[in-house]
Amino acid sequence: MPNRTKYSVEKIPGGYPRDRIFNPVSVAVMGVTQTPGTVPYDIFYNILASGYKGVLYPVAPGKRAISAVPAYRYLTDIEGEIDLAVIVYPARQCEKALEMCGQKGVKGVIIISAGFREVGPEGLRREQRIKEICAEYDISLVGPNCLGVINTDPKIMLNASFARQMPAEGRIAFLSQSGALCTAVLDYARSKNIGFSKFVSFGNKAGVTEMGLLDYLHQDEKTDVVLLYLEELRDGRALIETARRVTRGDNPKPILAIKSGRTSQGADAASSHTGSLAGEDAICEAIFSEAGIIRVTTIEELFDTAILLSSQPMPKGNRLAIVTNAGGPGVMATDAAVNAGLEIPRFQPETTKKLADALPAAANIKNPVDVIGDARSDRYESAISAVLDDPNVDQALVILTPQSMTDIEEIARGVVRVHEQTDKPMACSFIGAADVAVGVDILQDAHIPHYIMPEWACGAMADIQRIRKWRAQPVEADYQPPAVDRRAAAAIIDDLTADYLDEDQALAVLKAYGFPVPEYKLCRSADEAVEFAEKIGYPAVLRVVSPQIIHKFDVKGVALDLADAGCVRKAYDEMVAHVGRVVPEAEIKGILVRGMIPAGHEVILGAKHDAAFGATLMFGLGGLFVEIFRDVTFALAPITPAAAARMIHQVKAVKLLQGARGTEPADIAGIEDCLLRLSLLVTDFERIVELDINPLLVGPSGTGCSVADVRIRLSE
Amino acid sequence: MPNRTKYSVEKIPGGYPRDRIFNPVSVAVMGVTQTPGTVPYDIFYNILASGYKGVLYPVAPGKRAISAVPAYRYLTDIEGEIDLAVIVYPARQCEKALEMCGQKGVKGVIIISAGFREVGPEGLRREQRIKEICAEYDISLVGPNCLGVINTDPKIMLNASFARQMPAEGRIAFLSQSGALCTAVLDYARSKNIGFSKFVSFGNKAGVTEMGLLDYLHQDEKTDVVLLYLEELRDGRALIETARRVTRGDNPKPILAIKSGRTSQGADAASSHTGSLAGEDAICEAIFSEAGIIRVTTIEELFDTAILLSSQPMPKGNRLAIVTNAGGPGVMATDAAVNAGLEIPRFQPETTKKLADALPAAANIKNPVDVIGDARSDRYESAISAVLDDPNVDQALVILTPQSMTDIEEIARGVVRVHEQTDKPMACSFIGAADVAVGVDILQDAHIPHYIMPEWACGAMADIQRIRKWRAQPVEADYQPPAVDRRAAAAIIDDLTADYLDEDQALAVLKAYGFPVPEYKLCRSADEAVEFAEKIGYPAVLRVVSPQIIHKFDVKGVALDLADAGCVRKAYDEMVAHVGRVVPEAEIKGILVRGMIPAGHEVILGAKHDAAFGATLMFGLGGLFVEIFRDVTFALAPITPAAAARMIHQVKAVKLLQGARGTEPADIAGIEDCLLRLSLLVTDFERIVELDINPLLVGPSGTGCSVADVRIRLSE
Repeated sequence: MPNRTKYSVEKIPGGYPRDRIFNPVSVAVMGVTQTPGTVPYDIFYNILASGYKGVLYPVAPGKRAISAVPAYRYLTDIEGEIDLAVIVYPARQCEKALEMCGQKGVKGVIIISAGFREVGPEGLRREQRIKEICAEYDISLVGPNCLGVINTDPKIMLNASFARQMPAEGRIAFLSQSGALCTAVLDYARSKNIGFSKFVSFGNKAGVTEMGLLDYLHQDEKTDVVLLYLEELRDGRALIETARRVTRGDNPKPILAIKSGRTSQGADAASSHTGSLAGEDAICEAIFSEAGIIRVTTIEELFDTAILLSSQPMPKGNRLAIVTNAGGPGVMATDAAVNAGLEIPRFQPETTKKLADALPAAANIKNPVDVIGDARSDRYESAISAVLDDPNVDQALVILTPQSMTDIEEIARGVVRVHEQTDKPMACSFIGAADVAVGVDILQDAHIPHYIMPEWACGAMADIQRIRKWRAQPVEADYQPPAVDRRAAAAIIDDLTADYLDEDQALAVLKAYGFPVPEYKLCRSADEAVEFAEKIGYPAVLRVVSPQIIHKFDVKGVALDLADAGCVRKAYDEMVAHVGRVVPEAEIKGILVRGMIPAGHEVILGAKHDAAFGATLMFGLGGLFVEIFRDVTFALAPITPAAAARMIHQVKAVKLLQGARGTEPADIAGIEDCLLRLSLLVTDFERIVELDINPLLVGPSGTGCSVADVRIRLSE
Repeated sequence: MPNRTKYSVEKIPGGYPRDRIFNPVSVAVMGVTQTPGTVPYDIFYNILASGYKGVLYPVAPGKRAISAVPAYRYLTDIEGEIDLAVIVYPARQCEKALEMCGQKGVKGVIIISAGFREVGPEGLRREQRIKEICAEYDISLVGPNCLGVINTDPKIMLNASFARQMPAEGRIAFLSQSGALCTAVLDYARSKNIGFSKFVSFGNKAGVTEMGLLDYLHQDEKTDVVLLYLEELRDGRALIETARRVTRGDNPKPILAIKSGRTSQGADAASSHTGSLAGEDAICEAIFSEAGIIRVTTIEELFDTAILLSSQPMPKGNRLAIVTNAGGPGVMATDAAVNAGLEIPRFQPETTKKLADALPAAANIKNPVDVIGDARSDRYESAISAVLDDPNVDQALVILTPQSMTDIEEIARGVVRVHEQTDKPMACSFIGAADVAVGVDILQDAHIPHYIMPEWACGAMADIQRIRKWRAQPVEADYQPPAVDRRAAAAIIDDLTADYLDEDQALAVLKAYGFPVPEYKLCRSADEAVEFAEKIGYPAVLRVVSPQIIHKFDVKGVALDLADAGCVRKAYDEMVAHVGRVVPEAEIKGILVRGMIPAGHEVILGAKHDAAFGATLMFGLGGLFVEIFRDVTFALAPITPAAAARMIHQVKAVKLLQGARGTEPADIAGIEDCLLRLSLLVTDFERIVELDINPLLVGPSGTGCSVADVRIRLSE
């Protein structure tokens, strides 16, 4: 497992969980009390009552036994090796307990206790100390401030959590940053007969991180699907790299995730939720999409999709056959399927013939197939078999409404029989509750996914198409970034103390990084300006350069379309005079002279240093599209050529660049090149906190782009 | 009830249901058999077993009794009056049975049987005959092809349906075009403890329609909310008028609706679902929005919102306070609320103080309030009371996750206590299933809406905001349409045999209807063209007019920006020569001369005669916005000034017209006027199947618009 090693050793020590956290031969619970209904007791009791197959030691000073299990005063009193220690002491005692673990040689620890970074500066210091102890003793730590860990493997049966009940065994792993959500999810999942392989509440992720857990579960033979509930995304780049490893390649496992709120405190941030978060959420979206993580918005969608993934094969395509005994729900399902991007294909003639033979004349033998209200199991079975045999069909949805003639139990058995014979995925929706319960039980026993409403099945199937498409994307070859003159850019940036680069400096930086910057010169006299304009040809443009002037147009600091030497001289003199008059305090560095840039599509390239995500990139078409339709895309730097292409092609207005309305296609390759160079520039220089190329003018395909205006802001 | 009378008599005879259908003193079931598990028996038995308070007569030739109830050979054998007859004979016998009802003087009939318009031409003829008999005998008919009718009123207790169980009593009425969906919905609702006032499956709506039922339920004292499942919208205008009556005014009742599929056959249409339906669905959307009907997409959303509506008061505004014992779900709920358009307000200082006093230091006393994981009922109760007392808060959502210390039952009781003291709406989400069941039961007993997931509560609350906003809209005063010269337009249109109007004819029609058409003349010689150009001034425009030429630009049939008499003459001669050469078969009617229209915002006004909906109107901004962003709005003609304003303000690009990006605001009033005239024109002339003003050029506010191009297509 080279990836794993690389990751855990090089990037986040301790981020990868040691196997003994999930599969310990011996567990000590440190800080157990004798009061049922309190966390310190419940954790201990849950391990005991869950049927744990190893040895359990309560550490409880002053007690002879806890629930009849012999207790120890100190961890070090226990003879033999301890694989996993679960610490339930109050926060202020955790350091000492952890230290003791280190001395005893315990390499796996879960700290359940709260009272760390989530409670403010003092807690953060405490957490820092915890991290140091883990590093010193090479301890793999889950938590603090978490619910614990569950492993349903019958050989282990570990419920080291304060969840009341052990979940059933299953092939879904659930990782949650929120502990409170875990108890609710476990309860909800139990009501839906959903089992888990591993269940981890990772809390403040001071040691083991979501990345480490993803890598671990990638190798876990008991897990097919990973569900992730994340409140705080601390390292987007690492998540992208990890998730790409997990979700593609030899042993791909889908990751479905909910990302809510921004900080681990959650509630605090929420009241100022609207404005700034929209942008950050778009970056999250970009990260997940780049990572191949399927982002969902609700707990139901998470499980709806997970159930389908963990029980059914991957479909070969997006074509769905629907078999129903009622038109209405059939059409609603069709609406939902089509809206979600699934296809409702026509059947091949052979299938149509089979259906015509098996069904009464009043039935609808087109897709969605309506076996009509009085259908019994024989009709259902023939229809489902027929549509699944059709090469035009990749998956099937069976809808049932309970009507007078409906033999629900027999129909369910029929569905199970067909399911055993097919290698295509199936799902069912027996609409209702009590009336259909007998059928639903039969389906669930046979591991056929069941949804109370057909729309939910369609939503899950659509999510699976996202996974299929992600896997079908070619893994990108190693990408050789373009050669740039880093030293030239550094010479400008490194010693600068100002916030903003002057325009000549900013253009020089872009030039050093190979951007298409038009020829320009910073001139100090009208003569110099005329001389340079004569050299590059007319029409010419003048732009005032002054550290005090950010908005050139407001002070008449821009003159366009100057046709000859006379115009240039006149404009130069007027500009210097006017600017001197209206902004007397401005120190005029000179007047930048360049040619007019030929008209073209205006696009905006932006970069921003985000405190949470690092360097992020933005792309959109100029003006209206950004302002009115918010038609922009984001990515985390550094990007690959494929990501640059995605950024451009995911804005809706890309059609304009592709030549909609009879215009010539624009030089999209040129924009991609600029995005890659921008990515490189902001990755190389962390001091660049904001960079806007607005606009970049894009000519017809093959003719390139030109930077028409740029602003670069540095951190202090 | 003047509305009702007006409606049922003038527009759809029989569309309004007679009261005796729901409240019959005597019921006859015609065509009963003795075989349980068949519709004819089950319907009869359901009435018997539901505890019906009236008298029940089975009509079953050759049987002495059905389930011990004396049976009759013919309906006419029954002595005394029959209020309601339920016909369960096979389709071909229904006419005769209905005829017998007429002779017996039965005024309320339900035909359960299928086999009418939904099975093709023969069925359609049968249905037509049924309608005639109803008209002849003045019978109020529900169905055919339906599940029946349920009235849970304890004084009636009528389950005249083949649904297995009678639902509980409640204040929600459910109307469904799909019978099969009804059984499923009843089963689903029972599992959620949802009760109904009336439950109607109206099937093919040959007699009683959704409009008639809405008017009836508007007057029904047992009903607070109406849910509607519609597959086929036959008369959009009538639905708008009816729904506006029901949802606003003195006794407003909300209507929530699902509209799926297009035809009553449903399934048939579904396979060609994608393309054309998108547009039609947008028209449906426009109809619902104009009608004040809240359109939802799933059965859950229907009930989630209905439960809140039927148990809680209307909130005064959109400000939501959240109280939770877990940060994660609190933030997820905040995300969902904000995305749905709810506001998460700041509390007033007094509230913050109350919260600070009642909660521990680690709690979050901002909105969403986190009472934290170890909270017991006292903390919950204080927090909920405090936030509900805050004048900044219009409604509250209480979230609970089951944790070790959580006294679920007591917390639920606390919520009930607070609920009794407040006049603001509340909802709860106790996340989980078995663990929280005890609390959920207490909430439901107290009629406090409960949602398994907080997002669902937020969705329901957001729907209620739509209702609140709808009711807050001023009811429009009677609108006096602008005066137009209908006769002048008729003189052009009525005798025309061509598909398309020639440009001069189309412009004349628009002129007659008062559109801002620039001065123009159809000229037959270069001299005439020059003379007219001299009169109107330069620059001038020439446009060839020929019935054979639709796309003028393709044949160089347009000349723009002609500066003087010489240019006009030259352009005229060249145009005639060129067109004659490239389209020798074209009959050139003349060359239309007009002035250049000053540049402005390009907008598109369209009208189309839709087979299902009648005349529909479309509005959008020119070019990109329509093509790339599909940023258009629809409405059903005729429209009111308010609807015209809505059409314009609901496109996103309206910001451009309002003066985004520093430009001058455009003449929106001018566009509204054109939309109203367009509405009038296509309502007056049903032969106009398509009309496009593309573009209408809009000048700055107050300066008006100009029709730059128009195309009008007629039916044969």
